Amino acid sequence: MSKNAKEAKAPHTARLILTGHIIDSMILPSVMDLVMDLGGNFNVEELIVGKHKTDPSFCRLEVNAESAAQLDRIVRRARELGAKVEAEHPVRLEAVKKAGVFPEGFYSTSNLPTEVLLGSRWVAVEKQEMDTAIAVDEREARAWCVAFGQAYPGLKVVVGHAGVRVLPLERSRQTEIFSFMASEISAEKPKKLLISRIAEEMRQIRSEAGRILVVAGPAVVHTGAGVYLSRLIELGYVQVLFAGNALAVHDVEAALFGTALGINLESGLPIEHGHEHHMRAINRVRQAGSLAEMVRSGHLKSGVMKTAVEHGVEIVLAGSIRDDGPLPEVITDVVEAQDRMRSAVPGVRMAIMLATMLHSIATGNLLPATVRTVCVDMNPAVVTKLADRGSWQSVGLVTDVESFLRELATVLEVQPS
Amino acid sequence: MSKNAKEAKAPHTARLILTGHIIDSMILPSVMDLVMDLGGNFNVEELIVGKHKTDPSFCRLEVNAESAAQLDRIVRRARELGAKVEAEHPVRLEAVKKAGVFPEGFYSTSNLPTEVLLGSRWVAVEKQEMDTAIAVDEREARAWCVAFGQAYPGLKVVVGHAGVRVLPLERSRQTEIFSFMASEISAEKPKKLLISRIAEEMRQIRSEAGRILVVAGPAVVHTGAGVYLSRLIELGYVQVLFAGNALAVHDVEAALFGTALGINLESGLPIEHGHEHHMRAINRVRQAGSLAEMVRSGHLKSGVMKTAVEHGVEIVLAGSIRDDGPLPEVITDVVEAQDRMRSAVPGVRMAIMLATMLHSIATGNLLPATVRTVCVDMNPAVVTKLADRGSWQSVGLVTDVESFLRELATVLEVQPS
Amino acid sequence: MSKNAKEAKAPHTARLILTGHIIDSMILPSVMDLVMDLGGNFNVEELIVGKHKTDPSFCRLEVNAESAAQLDRIVRRARELGAKVEAEHPVRLEAVKKAGVFPEGFYSTSNLPTEVLLGSRWVAVEKQEMDTAIAVDEREARAWCVAFGQAYPGLKVVVGHAGVRVLPLERSRQTEIFSFMASEISAEKPKKLLISRIAEEMRQIRSEAGRILVVAGPAVVHTGAGVYLSRLIELGYVQVLFAGNALAVHDVEAALFGTALGINLESGLPIEHGHEHHMRAINRVRQAGSLAEMVRSGHLKSGVMKTAVEHGVEIVLAGSIRDDGPLPEVITDVVEAQDRMRSAVPGVRMAIMLATMLHSIATGNLLPATVRTVCVDMNPAVVTKLADRGSWQSVGLVTDVESFLRELATVLEVQPS
Amino acid sequence: MSKNAKEAKAPHTARLILTGHIIDSMILPSVMDLVMDLGGNFNVEELIVGKHKTDPSFCRLEVNAESAAQLDRIVRRARELGAKVEAEHPVRLEAVKKAGVFPEGFYSTSNLPTEVLLGSRWVAVEKQEMDTAIAVDEREARAWCVAFGQAYPGLKVVVGHAGVRVLPLERSRQTEIFSFMASEISAEKPKKLLISRIAEEMRQIRSEAGRILVVAGPAVVHTGAGVYLSRLIELGYVQVLFAGNALAVHDVEAALFGTALGINLESGLPIEHGHEHHMRAINRVRQAGSLAEMVRSGHLKSGVMKTAVEHGVEIVLAGSIRDDGPLPEVITDVVEAQDRMRSAVPGVRMAIMLATMLHSIATGNLLPATVRTVCVDMNPAVVTKLADRGSWQSVGLVTDVESFLRELATVLEVQPS
Repeated sequence: MSKNAKEAKAPHTARLILTGHIIDSMILPSVMDLVMDLGGNFNVEELIVGKHKTDPSFCRLEVNAESAAQLDRIVRRARELGAKVEAEHPVRLEAVKKAGVFPEGFYSTSNLPTEVLLGSRWVAVEKQEMDTAIAVDEREARAWCVAFGQAYPGLKVVVGHAGVRVLPLERSRQTEIFSFMASEISAEKPKKLLISRIAEEMRQIRSEAGRILVVAGPAVVHTGAGVYLSRLIELGYVQVLFAGNALAVHDVEAALFGTALGINLESGLPIEHGHEHHMRAINRVRQAGSLAEMVRSGHLKSGVMKTAVEHGVEIVLAGSIRDDGPLPEVITDVVEAQDRMRSAVPGVRMAIMLATMLHSIATGNLLPATVRTVCVDMNPAVVTKLADRGSWQSVGLVTDVESFLRELATVLEVQPS
Repeated sequence: MSKNAKEAKAPHTARLILTGHIIDSMILPSVMDLVMDLGGNFNVEELIVGKHKTDPSFCRLEVNAESAAQLDRIVRRARELGAKVEAEHPVRLEAVKKAGVFPEGFYSTSNLPTEVLLGSRWVAVEKQEMDTAIAVDEREARAWCVAFGQAYPGLKVVVGHAGVRVLPLERSRQTEIFSFMASEISAEKPKKLLISRIAEEMRQIRSEAGRILVVAGPAVVHTGAGVYLSRLIELGYVQVLFAGNALAVHDVEAALFGTALGINLESGLPIEHGHEHHMRAINRVRQAGSLAEMVRSGHLKSGVMKTAVEHGVEIVLAGSIRDDGPLPEVITDVVEAQDRMRSAVPGVRMAIMLATMLHSIATGNLLPATVRTVCVDMNPAVVTKLADRGSWQSVGLVTDVESFLRELATVLEVQPS
Repeated sequence: MSKNAKEAKAPHTARLILTGHIIDSMILPSVMDLVMDLGGNFNVEELIVGKHKTDPSFCRLEVNAESAAQLDRIVRRARELGAKVEAEHPVRLEAVKKAGVFPEGFYSTSNLPTEVLLGSRWVAVEKQEMDTAIAVDEREARAWCVAFGQAYPGLKVVVGHAGVRVLPLERSRQTEIFSFMASEISAEKPKKLLISRIAEEMRQIRSEAGRILVVAGPAVVHTGAGVYLSRLIELGYVQVLFAGNALAVHDVEAALFGTALGINLESGLPIEHGHEHHMRAINRVRQAGSLAEMVRSGHLKSGVMKTAVEHGVEIVLAGSIRDDGPLPEVITDVVEAQDRMRSAVPGVRMAIMLATMLHSIATGNLLPATVRTVCVDMNPAVVTKLADRGSWQSVGLVTDVESFLRELATVLEVQPS
Repeated sequence: MSKNAKEAKAPHTARLILTGHIIDSMILPSVMDLVMDLGGNFNVEELIVGKHKTDPSFCRLEVNAESAAQLDRIVRRARELGAKVEAEHPVRLEAVKKAGVFPEGFYSTSNLPTEVLLGSRWVAVEKQEMDTAIAVDEREARAWCVAFGQAYPGLKVVVGHAGVRVLPLERSRQTEIFSFMASEISAEKPKKLLISRIAEEMRQIRSEAGRILVVAGPAVVHTGAGVYLSRLIELGYVQVLFAGNALAVHDVEAALFGTALGINLESGLPIEHGHEHHMRAINRVRQAGSLAEMVRSGHLKSGVMKTAVEHGVEIVLAGSIRDDGPLPEVITDVVEAQDRMRSAVPGVRMAIMLATMLHSIATGNLLPATVRTVCVDMNPAVVTKLADRGSWQSVGLVTDVESFLRELATVLEVQPS
């Protein structure tokens, strides 16, 4: 089993421990590969491959390098792949000196589950999010992600890579609902079964009181798919709704005038002076004071927003510089909007992103990798970009958002056998 | 009404006659504009605007130019816009000398209805087609379009622009079915009503024994929409089918193995060794000798091709260099395939182009502008290219071909009120 | 010239006056067409067509309708096309009652030059912008566009369509620089000459002290085109720069680390741990306090932002919910960002939009139709959307932003003959 | 090292031998994974990992299964991944009975290097090509790929999977020129270095007398990039040219009239009656008899075709149903065209595919996986489709074909240091 028994041991040695589904998740060979790439050698000291599908495997690798620097480099990279090192150093902390600024050399997070070594104990990082720093409260033995805006003087933040380990997402062997949907589903493939699998997963999540997040662009209203999204809300499959001003404006426009951006939603034809309708819709909501007030007073009688308000969906309308108006509920400060979206994420187990690149990417930035995402768009490039979250958790469909929502609502309407 | 009464008349004068819906079709101002652009002057000698929507208008314009050449140029351009000139010269003819080669200076056709002046009589050009020459039989007083391959020594062909006039398509004021669908329908618009209008038009055409042509790409099968196209055929809404080897191969593959390019059409998942299925499907048809024979012998039990064969649809399968096999019915010579497509066109009043750029463009090249075309594709660029036929006859939908065919079949299934 | 001399005059009559290049701008026939479409009749009482290219034409149309309502409708629509009515009613004004809310029935603006009739005098509307209301100060005889956020109690706002006229953009017969570039330039066309024409126009604008606005997305940096944009700034061809956080972040990342989103800008290859670079770049700027301070202190030595700061370009960095950080200069409130963009627009005569849909659409919303726009993007759908501003003022190029900027900088570098 | 020492041996056992770069090419873990997926067990009997980068590794796996069928299945799949089995069965052959039809159950090829076991000897399959059968001459101990059209009665063809092994492409550790260009290069990345690497590879290939194939669409001419392709030919970097009628027609049109599809190549503007130019160009070539004759007689003085003819490039112009004309050299029968393309492939080591989906896919079907391919297109979907050849041999660039060719010609023009 020795890579090369005759060669003299390189003087610098560490032992890497790999556990889990390290064969079929390609973790073991990835580690072997990187050791070689970085100029080291290895011996497989122990390799126990799980007999049953559900059994984890175990491997202990002795790694040899020519220098401490080389060994360090190997170990740091291997740790990113999920390897543990037999003797670890705890994290190094440094205090924030200026509000909104991290210490130089701060550890920059990924969206994967992460742990930090505090003293001799590995602690899971809370509120996992990409592109943040890790704050630590040593006394409470807690660690959590912080965005720039949340950094205040005195807050202890992790610096460097020591004592940080990232847990790779393991592909579950049981639930194949998502795993087969590797990456993107092109326009040229049948989608019925896939949508029924997504529906199944939604039922499962709801049966376990998990939350489902919908991120929706105005095309949901333009294509006449608002009724299907409303139905999903009524059936209890939407707990959180992220959108922008445009979705809400055109939804109200549809409720008040039967148009979206001046296009009649029945006929698809432009209405005379219809282009003004969205401006009049905005004005009415501003007059009423809020969407919620319009619903309460009975002036908003239909649409996605009305249904969402009535069913207690947690709504975050985030502003953008394209907005007309905007509506009173729209959060015009983008940092505040991010914070509001962030605080709605806990408990979310699936995110369904519908025909909006801006809001979908913003949402993707905030979601831990463990949240399953479904991305629907007509543009293959958008789907590819959104579905590319490096995991088995994500599926993209290149299709009409109206087709998708109609099929999904139809399947969810029927009680499962 | 004089453009400028005081100026001396330019010595070169012609009188243009414009009739029809020349105001709302923008023909009159286009002609006025070009006269000015080319340096001429004009007087509106007579302008009678039709009172009712259906009344044609009439205008006689006196055009003055500085030179015969300038006048010629104006007249030639105006004629292309549909203007007639009070005194016209008959067409000039020249005989083909070498097979497959037109005389230098041959008149190159558009797809618009065209007439040629033979002696003193305007004769409509038959088999109108873009990018061809016009052959003339003076004794029979007939004229028709000829492609390069149809030119044989001795055939008389029109040379130059004299005596040729193009009749612009007039937007019908009555039938608004197509006219409102100006150009392309984006993914972001509701499509239900549009599809029901297309269905209405199909019913109308069939009630008048007009023929409907479907041009279909393999995505029809890949997306699981084959059943809907089959249903259209069964309902009598498809008289002609243009496709390539791939549609037929994957349709047979679906019938024999339940897959298309190895993807299970139920689940959307790849089948083990499924990639070979299309090769095995091809082999089986080649073994049987033809698709028709497989249908006859009961070995091909379902699918678009089986339905088309049984319902006597005129099928043209045209080959391309991407083809595997190909199937026996595929015409491998592209010039022969064009001729076969050409001979299937007469009587066709609507062409529905489904998710195939190559075959749709080839078909578009052969169709007169009077044939209504419906282009369906997921790629906006393809729809824009195909729907851009410079007339009110063409509509493009950016959508899933499966969604489109499902909706269309559903609407046509129901008897009209 | 009577449309139908024999018919009894309809009792409701108005006289429309059309002046300018009403033939070749299609205004006359458009008005004729709409009169017929709306069920009215017309007599051309006078038509004087300009003799020379530069001469305006004049037309007086008598319009007859069956009812006052029908006549009103015709006149209102005709006025939108630029027609004047011989006897006009002044605008109707109503005061704002609630801050941020317009009176019901407010006139909603387009981006075309607009005039309002105050007393007996037509007054040009200032700060023309799409989707706003028109505020009026009667004593000062001034009118200007106001967005929702600018409405305060007591402000007088135009209600209804009476006394408002929109001046259509006339295609200049002289300057053909933009006019030939009708709409979009596809990827399949040669672009050299077009870019040299744009350069020519830029020189012309600068020679008249006009301002040029560049709207730039991060792809400018990713593709390595930042150097060319910097060169344009140095040569004095950029007075205003609109961008988002991402452009500035990746520009600083490139200056500090030689990467953009972790991709080495020389090699196009990912750098180890390079993904963190943009986070480190953000942190450094936040530490410094601002981009301007980093430039002043010599810590930012190259890049678009450094060049723009040093050359006194008016910079507006507008935030979005996708942003990491953001940088100190980024305006996180989108309504404030719009106001800042708005106040930078006066004097701008050309806007060059480079590979950013969000910022380009936001900018397009704020620009009067008289500003020439150049839109560059790899995605034909984006170009089509942005270049579709209904005028001869807009041109779109489907191409690499790097190719475009390199060529443009090369042409502008050379002194014109 | 035993997977589970205590469990009773499954009665069906085989020994798999894996050699080569099986760790970093992921072959070993892929095999381990599939054994488990198919319900078997394995023991790693021997694993020798190469010490140096260039050393191959060796692994012997004992595989146990519950049944012969299960073992068979495992072995067959493992063989596809490159595993050898200690005791192999020779291929099974069956004779073709009907011309153009393979025996049912024929082995359907991939584009990867393949070997067949004839008697006790592994023989490399010649003319490797995807979607063909393997013909065998036992006496000569030769095997080669045959397309449907090449099957004649009596020809021996491989049936089933026994005795066939596919050699996976190993990523070379030395040449990194292509390996870093994993898959597609998006529009948002710098391309200069990549193009210089491609140029380097072209020089290397030519220095070893390898052939370079260019597949070109008409956009090469439309964008004005014909001069750069001509330059590549003059510099000796193009030995084979695959194209369609359109490239040649528009190239001749450009040479004769300075236009492509009627667009002036200098200005990008349409020429009056320019649409006819391509028809006139076709007519002139048909009159001359051939492109070669036009070059010889001096009537074709410039352009890609002229340069290619003069430099003895092997040209295959393949017809399609979109073609006008076509030109005399165009092969109108698509099966004959495939055969001509096929016979030009031997010796080709790089294929550069420029802005043509039809011809590029057709070419990709014919190329062995060992040929390096460079795909250039503005449409990311096309690049993704073409570059997805499952190997490290393929690179796609989303960019202007004109930018690409200009840069490539510039780099190749300069002598390498």
